[in-house]
Amino acid sequence: MPAAALIGVDWGTTSFRAYLIDAHGRILDRRSAPAGILQVPDRDFARVLEQQVRAWHAAARGAPIIASGMITSRQGWQETPYLACPAGAGDLAAGLERRETGLGRIHFVPGLRTEDADGVPDVIRGEETQIAGLALDHGRDLRAVLPGTHSKWIEVRGGRIAGFQTYMTGEVYGVLREHSILGRLMTGDDHDPVAFTRGLDAAGPGGRGLLRRLFSARTLGLFDRLQGGAIGPYLSGLLIGTEIAEALAEGRSADPLLVVGESTLAGRYLDAFRHVGVPAEAAPGDPAAAGHLAIGRAAGLIP
Amino acid sequence: MPAAALIGVDWGTTSFRAYLIDAHGRILDRRSAPAGILQVPDRDFARVLEQQVRAWHAAARGAPIIASGMITSRQGWQETPYLACPAGAGDLAAGLERRETGLGRIHFVPGLRTEDADGVPDVIRGEETQIAGLALDHGRDLRAVLPGTHSKWIEVRGGRIAGFQTYMTGEVYGVLREHSILGRLMTGDDHDPVAFTRGLDAAGPGGRGLLRRLFSARTLGLFDRLQGGAIGPYLSGLLIGTEIAEALAEGRSADPLLVVGESTLAGRYLDAFRHVGVPAEAAPGDPAAAGHLAIGRAAGLIP
Repeated sequence: MPAAALIGVDWGTTSFRAYLIDAHGRILDRRSAPAGILQVPDRDFARVLEQQVRAWHAAARGAPIIASGMITSRQGWQETPYLACPAGAGDLAAGLERRETGLGRIHFVPGLRTEDADGVPDVIRGEETQIAGLALDHGRDLRAVLPGTHSKWIEVRGGRIAGFQTYMTGEVYGVLREHSILGRLMTGDDHDPVAFTRGLDAAGPGGRGLLRRLFSARTLGLFDRLQGGAIGPYLSGLLIGTEIAEALAEGRSADPLLVVGESTLAGRYLDAFRHVGVPAEAAPGDPAAAGHLAIGRAAGLIP
Repeated sequence: MPAAALIGVDWGTTSFRAYLIDAHGRILDRRSAPAGILQVPDRDFARVLEQQVRAWHAAARGAPIIASGMITSRQGWQETPYLACPAGAGDLAAGLERRETGLGRIHFVPGLRTEDADGVPDVIRGEETQIAGLALDHGRDLRAVLPGTHSKWIEVRGGRIAGFQTYMTGEVYGVLREHSILGRLMTGDDHDPVAFTRGLDAAGPGGRGLLRRLFSARTLGLFDRLQGGAIGPYLSGLLIGTEIAEALAEGRSADPLLVVGESTLAGRYLDAFRHVGVPAEAAPGDPAAAGHLAIGRAAGLIP
């Protein structure tokens, strides 16, 4: 087995992921568990980490541990500050917060903050590391889209994160489906590409008119123009289409679009971009692990 | 006691209201109870109605009963069809559905349906009766705004309802407050006019950008720029401001705006219209009772 150079930990609100990485950036092993920071008993994060990476100890002895994600928030293990934009891998490396643990020293990645034209703040924690792994080394200007509960659109310019916006798309979908009248007529969880596309088409120009358009997921069901199994995919399309229209209307950047993540949801976003005729490509690989490596190198932790 | 000419029943999802009305339209007595159609045991609507209006029987013997609201839906007592727009009091009277009960004959008001430019249906049940009471007799063209869980904007032209739009503002507020991350930092239920106004100002032009702007209710709290008690009013302002901007952008009608209802929420809408510089006035009186009277007259049930 090649020598491990780094353990990268991507620890979010609902899931734990870890990577054993060699000095060439190859992933030697990986683990994931439904052990997000809100699911850790007594906030005993050290115990969870040890359980998860115990088997790596022989290979990884002496290798640094870099952790990113909500584990660096106030509810996590070690709160790190938010750095201002623009920020690249070097800035993230300079902002690492260290903590000595029974597993050795752990380096926690800072989050980032930005403000929009109205002075309203926005924040990311974890996505900065994925972007560091994806793009910062290449010096390529782009907009990265990271779908999820809170979808993040991140501008990369000159090898640094220049700014970003958060869209509450995933969470709005979840609460409307589970708790609003729109969920009443919904049946099943299967994807329905036709209904999804119809939802995309129902988004308003520039993302306008959402509070009214949402009600169509009720009335189309009431009049049997959408079957129960189609209402969820329609609502998903309406919300993702609205997000994309909002972001394209506000951003006006000509930089290429990259959709990050190998989730089913990332695939939906790629479908949506294709449908609205906006070129977008899928980001390759494991950007979080690549980001831990890039930050580790910038910090001089890896030869 | 003057002779009662009519019992009007406005029976919605969460509340029951009834009016004892004389032939001049004066309200002789009124009752309300938290006995919405979803709270009626065994769907025994006759029993609830009798409990509520028993004391009126002597005065009202022989007077017709007219009922409107969700009691006329599939989940209610007597389903009535949706009439097409335009529709006035005469159309509503012609569309009454009758049911014989132990309390005598009850006349159920139909709902209305319309379609937007994209062919998407929209519906109202109950609001058509309030509008019949407000405006249809006067022949005055106007746009009525009926705030609520589902806010309705209704266009009245030439004494008939010409069309309407539903905005899910109230329900979106409720589910985000109760079930999303935006509720986590919220404390208390008090109104905060400054935070409400700040939310109004945060709405995008034409109502654009809601999925992104929602997240400001999180980040302004995170950075202590909004205290816990201010976040709810801020979110309320953001959503109401977005609804108003959406509606004004889509509608482009120069007709006067009338805000219907004596609820606290109606007062917020009046505050919001004042803040954004759009003239709007409060609708007078008890529009549901006046609507029952107008429809009853048009149906020849009242001399």
